[in-house]
Formats: sequence, C-alpha cells, structure tokens
Amino acid sequence: MSETSALFGAARGGDRTALARLLSLIERGGPEARVVGRLSFALAGPASTVGITGAPGAGKSTLTSALVSRIRDRASEVAVLAVDPSSPFTGGAILGDRVRMSDHSLDRGVFIRSMATRGHLGGLSLAVPEAVRLLDAVGFPLVIIETVGVGQVEVEIAGEADTTVVVVNPGWGDAVQANKAGLMEIADVFVVNKADRAGLRDTLTDIERMLSLRSVDGWRPPIVATTATTGDGVDDLLAAIESHQQWSIGSGDRAARRAMRTEVELDRILTTQLLAKVAALHQDDGWAAVVEAVRSQQLDPWSAAEDLLG
Amino acid sequence: MSETSALFGAARGGDRTALARLLSLIERGGPEARVVGRLSFALAGPASTVGITGAPGAGKSTLTSALVSRIRDRASEVAVLAVDPSSPFTGGAILGDRVRMSDHSLDRGVFIRSMATRGHLGGLSLAVPEAVRLLDAVGFPLVIIETVGVGQVEVEIAGEADTTVVVVNPGWGDAVQANKAGLMEIADVFVVNKADRAGLRDTLTDIERMLSLRSVDGWRPPIVATTATTGDGVDDLLAAIESHQQWSIGSGDRAARRAMRTEVELDRILTTQLLAKVAALHQDDGWAAVVEAVRSQQLDPWSAAEDLLG
Repeated sequence: MSETSALFGAARGGDRTALARLLSLIERGGPEARVVGRLSFALAGPASTVGITGAPGAGKSTLTSALVSRIRDRASEVAVLAVDPSSPFTGGAILGDRVRMSDHSLDRGVFIRSMATRGHLGGLSLAVPEAVRLLDAVGFPLVIIETVGVGQVEVEIAGEADTTVVVVNPGWGDAVQANKAGLMEIADVFVVNKADRAGLRDTLTDIERMLSLRSVDGWRPPIVATTATTGDGVDDLLAAIESHQQWSIGSGDRAARRAMRTEVELDRILTTQLLAKVAALHQDDGWAAVVEAVRSQQLDPWSAAEDLLG
Repeated sequence: MSETSALFGAARGGDRTALARLLSLIERGGPEARVVGRLSFALAGPASTVGITGAPGAGKSTLTSALVSRIRDRASEVAVLAVDPSSPFTGGAILGDRVRMSDHSLDRGVFIRSMATRGHLGGLSLAVPEAVRLLDAVGFPLVIIETVGVGQVEVEIAGEADTTVVVVNPGWGDAVQANKAGLMEIADVFVVNKADRAGLRDTLTDIERMLSLRSVDGWRPPIVATTATTGDGVDDLLAAIESHQQWSIGSGDRAARRAMRTEVELDRILTTQLLAKVAALHQDDGWAAVVEAVRSQQLDPWSAAEDLLG
C-alpha cells in the first residue's frame, strides 16, 4: 500500500492530520493528487454540499460559524472549505476572518480548511472539486464551501454546490453591484445578513423583484434575513437550506446538476491537460527551431502549429 | 489559381474591394483565412505598426484622423485597423466614432477598417495579427491599430505593435484608473489629449512619476500634449512616434519584440487548436458514454480525460 493510500485509510478512520495532508497533496497537484482523486472518487457522493458566497465583509464567516453550531447541536459532523482565490495563503486558519471559526477549533466533529493556492495548472477550479470529493469520501455528511468574494471564480466555485447560498447586506454594497446578475443566477437561498441595519426592506424588495425576472424552474429561492452575530434567523437559514436539499433530491435537480458538473469538470481537466501540452512544447527540442523558422518567415505560424502538434 | 489567390493579387495591385474581402475572410477564420495568412506571411515585414489605445472618449479617433492627415501630407499611404472587441459590428465605418475618419473616405491612400467580430475560436487575438500582416503584405508602409477601450484584450492588441501610443486626458478619467499599470507597461509614447482642459499639469506630473518607476530599458517614453480637434501637438506626436521607430530599429528592440510576438502568436494558435480539439470531443461518439461512466462513478474524470485524449 502506498503512503497516500495509507493516509487515505487513516483519514477515513477519523485522522484529521492525515486528512489535512491529503488536502495538501490535492492542492499541490500532480501524480499524488491523482491517487487521492481516484481513491476519493469511488466513495464520494453521499455528502450534501452547500456553497456560500457574498462580498467580503458580508458576514459569511460569522454566518457559517453560526450554521456550523446549529449543525453540531444535532451531533452531525461538518467540513468547511474556505476558498480564497486571491490569497497566496493556504492550509490552516490563516485568513483573518477564519478567526471567527475558532469557536469550533476544539470540536473534532468540525473540520475547517482554507484553500488559496493557485499554484498548479488549472489551479483552484480543479482542486476544489477534488477537495470536496475527499471530504465527502472520508465521511462528512455535509461540506460547506465558503468563498471570500464575489469575483467570477468565487461565484463559479460556490455555484457548483448542491445548494448555493448568496449572502448580501442591506443596501447590497458596491462589491456586489458588478455581479448582481451572476449571483441571481446561482442563488438557491438568499440571505440578507446584518438585517438589523438600515435598508433591509428595500433590499428584500429589490431581491424579490430581481428573482421574479428569473425563469421559473420549479424552485423559488427563499430570502432569509439573518443577524449572524446574534444568531437571529440562522435557524431559518438552515431550514431554507434543508428545504432546498429535499426539493433538489426529490425533483431530480440535484442529480441533473451533478451530471452537469461532471461534464464541466471533465472539460476543465481536458483543457488543463491540453494546455499543459502547449507548455511542454516549449521545453521540446524542436520549439526554438520552429519559432526561429516562423520569425525568419520560412514557416507560417499555422503550419508551425500543425508541425508541433502532429 | 484559387479565388483567394486572385483576390490577394488584386489587393496587392491596389484593389481596395479585394482587400476588404480578404479581411472578411480573415475575420471569418477557417481554411480560407489560412490561405490568406500563408500568402501574406511571406511578404509581410516592411510595414511599421503603431498601436493606439486609451479610454473611450479620450479622442483617439480624432487623433488618429489628424495623424493620418499629417502622414498623407507626405504622400505616404496608411492603413487604419479599428479594433473593438466589445462590439458585434465589423466591416466598414460602422462605429459611431469612425465617422470622424470620414475626412479620409475619398482618399485612396488611406484604408480604414473596423474589426469587431469574435466569432471564430480564438477570435480577435488571432485575427488582428493576420489582418495587420495582410495590410503589410499588400504594401502599406504604416499600419495603425486603434483599439476602442482600455480593457485587457484591447491593451494587449495595441501593445503588440512596433510602437504603442497610450492616449489619456487631463485627469486621466475613471475608465483608465483600473488599468494604469498595464498602460504604463506598454506605452512607448504617452499622449495627453484634450490638453486645453483643466488638470494638464497634474496629469503630466503624474505620468512622469509613474514612468520613473518603470525599469529603464533604453527608451524613456516621451509625453506629448495634444488637442486633436485643433491639431495642436499632432506634429510632436508624429515626431515622437518616428523617434521611437528609429530607436527601436537601431537598438534591435523592434526585432526582439517581433520575435517575442512570434512566440506569443504561436502559443495562441496552439492553444486555439487544442481547445478546438476539446470542443470536437463533445461531438465524438464516445463523449456521452465517457460522461456517463464518470457520472455513475465507474471512471474517475482524470482517467476519463486520458481515455479521451489517448
């Protein structure tokens, strides 16, 4: 048995250090990441995934922490993957706002991990589904994927969960403006957090109006008002998430989404592999000669490309 | 001789309609575009290219039109390629601000063309160098590539000329703020147009300061103040462009840049060809079966990718 397989077995048995090391392998990419991927793949599926996205400062971490507490009240285990594509830091609770999650740091039923590397080719968009699959495979019934901002990558990552929660504040905030339509598209549950602030009613009306423009596909995203710092509304949020989970399983929406995600991931892997081939061509003995032939107008670039690929 | 070769011969002989049709073939992409590319490739090289970029409303078209007038005063021919990646329109002088170029519409020594399609795979970033090569090959000694905005694609396109001119206004303007660093990096000549407006001195100082942060590589971009509507400073701009052209030819900078562009273009073509392969896989008989195998957890996605590529 390889060391990676041994780590995988230990992680399945509840060894959190082993699990953390496997996640590091996934982040690093390469052959060992593939081994972890293959081991996880066969066992993944039972977990429900919840993506939480919203502008920095919207209170996502506090809300996630409050949600985790409610879930732990039921003695259910939960994993939280905090994804920050803009940060060079990764690993433990390094990010500033991860500190709020420290309430759970002594609770073995909660596993929290930040992912921020975009080191290897394909980066986060490939590593996140692998990490989620691993957390699923080692037995967490619920995996929460929290993204730090509302940039394209973050929205995409959060949107690829079974249930996607979009967190805004009264007044929305400037950071959200640019991508309102994108958030509308992915939201299964809307949260207006910091509901004790001015402008709640207008924001609720605004979201209602925008959601009414969305084509009806059987699920109308509920809008929940929360104040994560006091815990107000967090039970309603959990209920809304569970309601979506039940609907999506019953209606076949979850299966359809997962099938679609399969295709998206396969596409990404294919693209990444092919781009790696382009990168590899640069290392090829023939590369400099071909570039020189094009530069000196002996060979046009399209023919050169054909030669290199042929 | 194929129809495309015949068109090419006609365009070399000065037939502007034939030239326009060849440009349409390039925009459309595909096998005929390759034929045009191969024909152009062998003959291209003599032309100098000048990229002009800056925020919408900075006065680039008026400035380009004024430059064209100065160039025509010397009886030299010139081609202008106006590139707008955000517009669905292409072809003649359709864009609103192209109207300012109508001063030259009866002058056979000036050829003006808008490019806006991003239809085929690879889109503008591949079509622009092909179009420039064609204009070069049919005999224009100078090709001006004007881009409509300061988005990433536009800055990239304008930055791939022999000489890149960045146009700003007193006060810079909001549109430029987001990409100041990118503009600093590509500028060979800085223009502060609408120099009669308030804030000229501050903007000149600001540019000086930012340029002083740029690593010195032998060429310090001059900063020219112009008022394109009156023609003030346009002679200085032309002199600055020519000064850069002389320096870059003499120093070997132009040859080095062109060699680098060759590599960049080859990379883009390779990437485009490989992405086309991914797209083609979707049409493959095996695609649905492989997706189903992954979905049903019979095959992990990395192995599936290997199978599909193998």
